[in-house]
Amino acid sequence: MRGLMQHAPLDVATLMRRVEQLFAHKRVITATATGENVATWADVVTRARRLAAVLDALHVPHQARVGTFGWNSQRHVELYLAVPSGGRILHTLNHRLFDDELTYIVADAADDVLFVDRSLMPRVWPLVDRLPTVRRVVVMDDGGAAELPADPRIADYEELLAGVRAPASPTAVDESDAASLCYTSGTTGRPKGVLYSHRSIVLHALMLLGVDNFAISERDVVLPIVPMFHVNAWGLPYAAMLAGADLVLPGPAMSPEALAAQLSRHRVTFSGAVATVWRSLLPLLGTVDLSSLRMVVSGGGALPDSLSKAWQDGTGIPLTNAWGMTETSPVVTCARLSSAHEGLDADARREVLRKPGPPLPLTEIRIVDEAGAPVEPDGTPGELQAYGPTIAAAYFGADPSPSSFTADGWLRTGDVGALDRHRYLEIIDRTKDMVKSGGEWISSVLLENEIMAHPAVHEAAVIAIDDERWGERPLAFVVPVADRPLDENDLRAHLAGRVASWWIPEKILILDEIPKTATGKFSKVSLRALVRDGEVAG
Amino acid sequence: MRGLMQHAPLDVATLMRRVEQLFAHKRVITATATGENVATWADVVTRARRLAAVLDALHVPHQARVGTFGWNSQRHVELYLAVPSGGRILHTLNHRLFDDELTYIVADAADDVLFVDRSLMPRVWPLVDRLPTVRRVVVMDDGGAAELPADPRIADYEELLAGVRAPASPTAVDESDAASLCYTSGTTGRPKGVLYSHRSIVLHALMLLGVDNFAISERDVVLPIVPMFHVNAWGLPYAAMLAGADLVLPGPAMSPEALAAQLSRHRVTFSGAVATVWRSLLPLLGTVDLSSLRMVVSGGGALPDSLSKAWQDGTGIPLTNAWGMTETSPVVTCARLSSAHEGLDADARREVLRKPGPPLPLTEIRIVDEAGAPVEPDGTPGELQAYGPTIAAAYFGADPSPSSFTADGWLRTGDVGALDRHRYLEIIDRTKDMVKSGGEWISSVLLENEIMAHPAVHEAAVIAIDDERWGERPLAFVVPVADRPLDENDLRAHLAGRVASWWIPEKILILDEIPKTATGKFSKVSLRALVRDGEVAG
Repeated sequence: MRGLMQHAPLDVATLMRRVEQLFAHKRVITATATGENVATWADVVTRARRLAAVLDALHVPHQARVGTFGWNSQRHVELYLAVPSGGRILHTLNHRLFDDELTYIVADAADDVLFVDRSLMPRVWPLVDRLPTVRRVVVMDDGGAAELPADPRIADYEELLAGVRAPASPTAVDESDAASLCYTSGTTGRPKGVLYSHRSIVLHALMLLGVDNFAISERDVVLPIVPMFHVNAWGLPYAAMLAGADLVLPGPAMSPEALAAQLSRHRVTFSGAVATVWRSLLPLLGTVDLSSLRMVVSGGGALPDSLSKAWQDGTGIPLTNAWGMTETSPVVTCARLSSAHEGLDADARREVLRKPGPPLPLTEIRIVDEAGAPVEPDGTPGELQAYGPTIAAAYFGADPSPSSFTADGWLRTGDVGALDRHRYLEIIDRTKDMVKSGGEWISSVLLENEIMAHPAVHEAAVIAIDDERWGERPLAFVVPVADRPLDENDLRAHLAGRVASWWIPEKILILDEIPKTATGKFSKVSLRALVRDGEVAG
Repeated sequence: MRGLMQHAPLDVATLMRRVEQLFAHKRVITATATGENVATWADVVTRARRLAAVLDALHVPHQARVGTFGWNSQRHVELYLAVPSGGRILHTLNHRLFDDELTYIVADAADDVLFVDRSLMPRVWPLVDRLPTVRRVVVMDDGGAAELPADPRIADYEELLAGVRAPASPTAVDESDAASLCYTSGTTGRPKGVLYSHRSIVLHALMLLGVDNFAISERDVVLPIVPMFHVNAWGLPYAAMLAGADLVLPGPAMSPEALAAQLSRHRVTFSGAVATVWRSLLPLLGTVDLSSLRMVVSGGGALPDSLSKAWQDGTGIPLTNAWGMTETSPVVTCARLSSAHEGLDADARREVLRKPGPPLPLTEIRIVDEAGAPVEPDGTPGELQAYGPTIAAAYFGADPSPSSFTADGWLRTGDVGALDRHRYLEIIDRTKDMVKSGGEWISSVLLENEIMAHPAVHEAAVIAIDDERWGERPLAFVVPVADRPLDENDLRAHLAGRVASWWIPEKILILDEIPKTATGKFSKVSLRALVRDGEVAG
């Protein structure tokens, strides 16, 4: 017997109606080359309805993929709304990928049209003849200076928007229908497509409003530094809509100075980015007023205490860790202080917030042993697996890795984690980044954190190198703080008090910069390539 | 094309797994005749799994209705979990209804078994031979002194629980399946059944965790005074599970003194009840420590400012209004302070919180004119209608009122409301409680609020009476504050400064008590009956 409740699908159109009805006056602010553009949410939704009519006029079929190459901007938000609500699938693309990766992804997704920020046209246009499915390229003029080629495939976003007669009528969708598509960063093997549904997007946004999670409210000013081409910018634009928050978007101005100015100028209360970004802002903390911040989330990897403490010293609040991946919409866990943490001092509270924390409502996590059996939540490490309505069940298109999902339908994350008895998660490492030395595991992430706790170290990354005697040994790459000498023996002495003696790397290499992935994480693939290609002595 | 996300149904079993995995140590405390019973959530879930096995052993068919006559107690929570997660339908019954209503409702629902608190057996057992569908009556011993008849239909809850060999295995349900059933209070006509789904229960719980709504968190101690036989106690037990809050349940001890003691003793942070309850606690505010309260919600009707101010004076926080009904799970709107209210003083903030506020995420409200066309949100009054996944689409069983739903699927609430430009709701009256005098509408609710603002008035209710000249005129029933003389002319002078002169009632009747409905609201049906039957001079 079915319950007798209204059908009311969980879809992107519901978010649009909500922000239009309740929060029409709240703002979406985008930094541009010449200043900034301020729109209301009502403007954004009105333009998104016209944009859906543009897609009709361009004869973009229902369920076709609409690719985007864009910074975090109002027009990108309009695409977030117009594409899924019109029954198509938004496919965000990361312009920092290699050419071969991009052409592979566009072909795998069979993108029908592309929307490209003008400043990114020099990156995208040279590839266009290798993208046979792409019929049209719509340019979004973000003040980029690039000359546009005279080509009939190219059209201008604003001209198209001005040219439609009327906004599109709502398209009925089923909440299980695909809404957007994002490929994993592909640190190993081919990138894989994750196909989000309307339902997963809306549920994820609703979860982020929870007081124990991101607690996004109408009173917030949200600045997603995490790119909109990366897992829907952690779902922050959709959560901001559902809550009625103001949204501040940095556009192409992603320098630490520009970000700090945006955070301060707009009295931002909530922001999210990878640890690399927060580290890059450290030198600026004393120079701008960041007193409006209530929560600063660090995702996409380990959060060293030295970094969180520097933020706490500089702004009054430590960083908050969260964990997720492209396959998980992405937020699965969010650090928080629970009733069990009452009475902790500031250092201990920061330590709680440094770990990824417990899972969000409706999502579940477990640790399994090598045989795939769940282990008790008692600190035992093992593979982390995830379940819930916001977690992928399969990959889109060519799937090279059916082993990413268990027989009972859970996602195998590829991370090694451990749960304490309250199911607070700690990530120990990526499975493939563990160093197995003399039959024992060394966590590259924990070792990096301890190296980065040294005052003369700016960044550090550890990989495994082959070793005749031990099987593998850790190799550390270290970027010193500018103008500060780094003594290797001093660093080893620092580590001696913090890790087991056999964790201490024999080889420490100084670099000017740790290579990063397209999403800002340490690229261990690139570091391994340096060693393999003989560019550094492994 | 479907999104490729996990199936993961939104069901009651998901809530059970969550509280078991993350919040096993958090508590469910029930007041009993002899003291209190403290259990952990792990205990509650473990017992609920055994209770599902009891229902198997009793051969309760899948989708059968399991009726409950219970106070707010741990065992009632166990029924909230065991019945839906085992694939049956929980049917909570209000023991304060009249015999004919109860026998009608049990027959309409075709309840297969009943679970009855021992203290309520004297109310329920005499009816049992008029309930032909009921095969068994399971008694929950709450310390009630009632002698139990020797009857083979009667069984003891704890004995049944102890008698099962093993907990029940999980039952697969579709999230759209019916989970629970509650009948409207039937102030007009026959009570009507509202059939909630697993999905509506889980979404409603998730909404209540939102920081802009009830903001229920792991750090909360939640005391639902609203009865568990009434619309799932506003969904508070389910929301507390999802958040991991402690739950305090008053059992049969519903006196103001007992409630005040519970609120204070357990450092309750969140509570919900109808205004009548909050009024009854006023004399006790100075006598107990209520400093732990962060949010006190008043639902089920208008919230007079005099009452909210008295709470603010007594505890430091005003009451917060919320609006809903049996058909809406029930919470649709919740008052809140938004960014537009920054800078308001305490009186103005209290006034914002006194109105029902904006709709929760995923729900929508609109006001329609007499032709059924939506009006602009500019204060124009009209019928309030509601839409969303937590709102009824139809009634269960015999439906005397198909006109309760519009052609486009919205619920017609029967309330007259108005929306301001930010879609904050104000309830003006029940459609049928408006007084039409000389062709103009008088709101009985607004008039009652102004009468209750007089310091010598404890409670007041207004109904329409026929009038030869004006069509209808308002008749006021007033309960004076104890030991305080009430002068009718003084009251009229008080009103003269607050309402239009033609709103002032010619007839003011003094009562010892306003008759209440079974859910604690003023019973205008009873007041009209007093007039009709000539017991008071109308």
